[in-house]
Amino acid sequence: MSKFWSEITKSIEPYVPGEQPKDKKYIKLNTNENPYPPSPKVLEAIKNAANGDLRLYPDPNCDELRETVAEYYGLNKNQIFIGNGSDEVLAFSFQAFFNPDSAIVFPDISYSFYPVYADLYNIKYRLAKLTEDFSIPVDEFLTKNGGVVIPNPNAPTAKYLDVDAIKKILDYNSEKVVIIDEAYIDFGGTSVVNLIKDYPNLLVVQTLSKSRSLAGIRIGFALGQEDLIQGLDRIKNSFNSYTIDRVASAAAVAAFKDVEYFKETTARIVNTRELVTEKLTALGFKVIPSKANFVFAAHESYSGEEIFKRLRDKGILVRYFNKERINNFLRISIGSEEEMDVFIEKAKEVINEIKNA
Amino acid sequence: MSKFWSEITKSIEPYVPGEQPKDKKYIKLNTNENPYPPSPKVLEAIKNAANGDLRLYPDPNCDELRETVAEYYGLNKNQIFIGNGSDEVLAFSFQAFFNPDSAIVFPDISYSFYPVYADLYNIKYRLAKLTEDFSIPVDEFLTKNGGVVIPNPNAPTAKYLDVDAIKKILDYNSEKVVIIDEAYIDFGGTSVVNLIKDYPNLLVVQTLSKSRSLAGIRIGFALGQEDLIQGLDRIKNSFNSYTIDRVASAAAVAAFKDVEYFKETTARIVNTRELVTEKLTALGFKVIPSKANFVFAAHESYSGEEIFKRLRDKGILVRYFNKERINNFLRISIGSEEEMDVFIEKAKEVINEIKNA
Repeated sequence: MSKFWSEITKSIEPYVPGEQPKDKKYIKLNTNENPYPPSPKVLEAIKNAANGDLRLYPDPNCDELRETVAEYYGLNKNQIFIGNGSDEVLAFSFQAFFNPDSAIVFPDISYSFYPVYADLYNIKYRLAKLTEDFSIPVDEFLTKNGGVVIPNPNAPTAKYLDVDAIKKILDYNSEKVVIIDEAYIDFGGTSVVNLIKDYPNLLVVQTLSKSRSLAGIRIGFALGQEDLIQGLDRIKNSFNSYTIDRVASAAAVAAFKDVEYFKETTARIVNTRELVTEKLTALGFKVIPSKANFVFAAHESYSGEEIFKRLRDKGILVRYFNKERINNFLRISIGSEEEMDVFIEKAKEVINEIKNA
Repeated sequence: MSKFWSEITKSIEPYVPGEQPKDKKYIKLNTNENPYPPSPKVLEAIKNAANGDLRLYPDPNCDELRETVAEYYGLNKNQIFIGNGSDEVLAFSFQAFFNPDSAIVFPDISYSFYPVYADLYNIKYRLAKLTEDFSIPVDEFLTKNGGVVIPNPNAPTAKYLDVDAIKKILDYNSEKVVIIDEAYIDFGGTSVVNLIKDYPNLLVVQTLSKSRSLAGIRIGFALGQEDLIQGLDRIKNSFNSYTIDRVASAAAVAAFKDVEYFKETTARIVNTRELVTEKLTALGFKVIPSKANFVFAAHESYSGEEIFKRLRDKGILVRYFNKERINNFLRISIGSEEEMDVFIEKAKEVINEIKNA
């Protein structure tokens, strides 16, 4: 604690991302990264952007990238906001649409950055308790509030909420912004992006970090009707005029244009996920049906923390949250077929070790 | 105005960056970009970073880049904070160190983003009026306040404040954070970075956008004692874990390591600036002595706005601020020798046109 810190700096509890240990080589299944490299066209675009024009500021409005995303989704570019990762987009959204004194609602088990954003901007919040089977409790969102945030599929549960349920929430909260955080939507769920024309209160947030293999580049975006996008622009332009650099922008445009590569790699991950789910079930794990690039699983007999630690010793990193209700679960990112074969093999070993201990 | 906007979104007046017109090819002397491309080693580093690792998140702590900057300045890496452009670093700094109810002080004629940050975080501020010759009024900062922000050299005046004057301000404000924004320090001024060891209240902010020809990449940084850097980390980690992408980080490391290229290009700009100052003076301009990569100049007989408009018609973009006290001035970025020859020639034409009109 320093006397120079502002009150907010003193009081906040920052988010802690998944560990990135450097002590040895791990099979990294702990931060939901894509096991496949970005499209070769993306790498080419980056190389082409490495030129003398980098001395110049980028386009503060990201026109080319917004046009590309708009075309992909059948929207117009004024319905697109681009940010430095979807985390930045979410932070701006909290500040742009939520007021301190009107409590917003999000699930109790969810992306643990949401309460941090709320605290950063002094916004009150209420936690909607997931049902026994980790479903989103729709009724909890049909009550007076200052706004709604729902990740779909949810993280870390991987559980998906269908479009009709989201419609119900949008209908009830017609005067408040409802943020649907679709970071993981491309792995089998249906995006609510088609509802934008009917729901002025809907803001959809997505990212290139997962399904487009670009966690290392930092591009996220929001989709919504024009006045919501203008609200985000107002906050962004009061914070940093140029959030997206020339290279990242070129990479993102190329990623969106290579639809074939995107379809192929996401399909492969979905396929691996289904195989891993079967194999984990056979090993005695309860696996929550997943529409994401990870699975959330608990063993029926043995401690999640114990399995987590033993996997780590064997060079496999998964994510473990020491939190009420989920402290027996592991969140396991879907790696390549080869990585997941090693993972299943090591999981088998670990379970036998615990059984025989 | 939208009913979905938060109170802050409704009330703020966003910053407006210098125009980036696309209607025709201009000689762009309006956003203080560097006329020389980034070091060839930077472009090489970007190409090398275009690989499959982009599927992975970057290092959230920017260790390699912090170590590189620390080595350059003889500091340790825990005294360095990296941000997505110095605008982001400044925004975080306002939130990290200033409280709403204790008015901070910055110059009345200065970087026009400061009042925007203050409004974004509801921080009160007081403007210190520059003296008649646009000097920073040191005494105005030796009064009770909630913190201090001074750009050195100042923008858009280009005027430099010497180290002793800054020491006086640091001594008086020992309980408050004093931000010295050194975006333009590498063009002939002396950085106060050496004062960091003696002043726990000093935060120095710099950027790679100007002197390192990387406006297109977005890297800024802050230097200060460890508890100030920790304060910035707390805010950043409550906003976005990964603000710096892998490619930008590699580019910035390479830029800092190519000291020779940096020295050569900045010296060239300083040299051109002195020649341009002479030539403008000969044309009847009053030019404020500059330690930046731009000059601030007013013609003794003719209107700044008129000259601005006519230059624009001739394909030369400079920056004009329609603001009290400076509405007869032009801010002219220093381009290459060739660009400035064209600029001087066109300025001559414009003055003759006005004279003969």
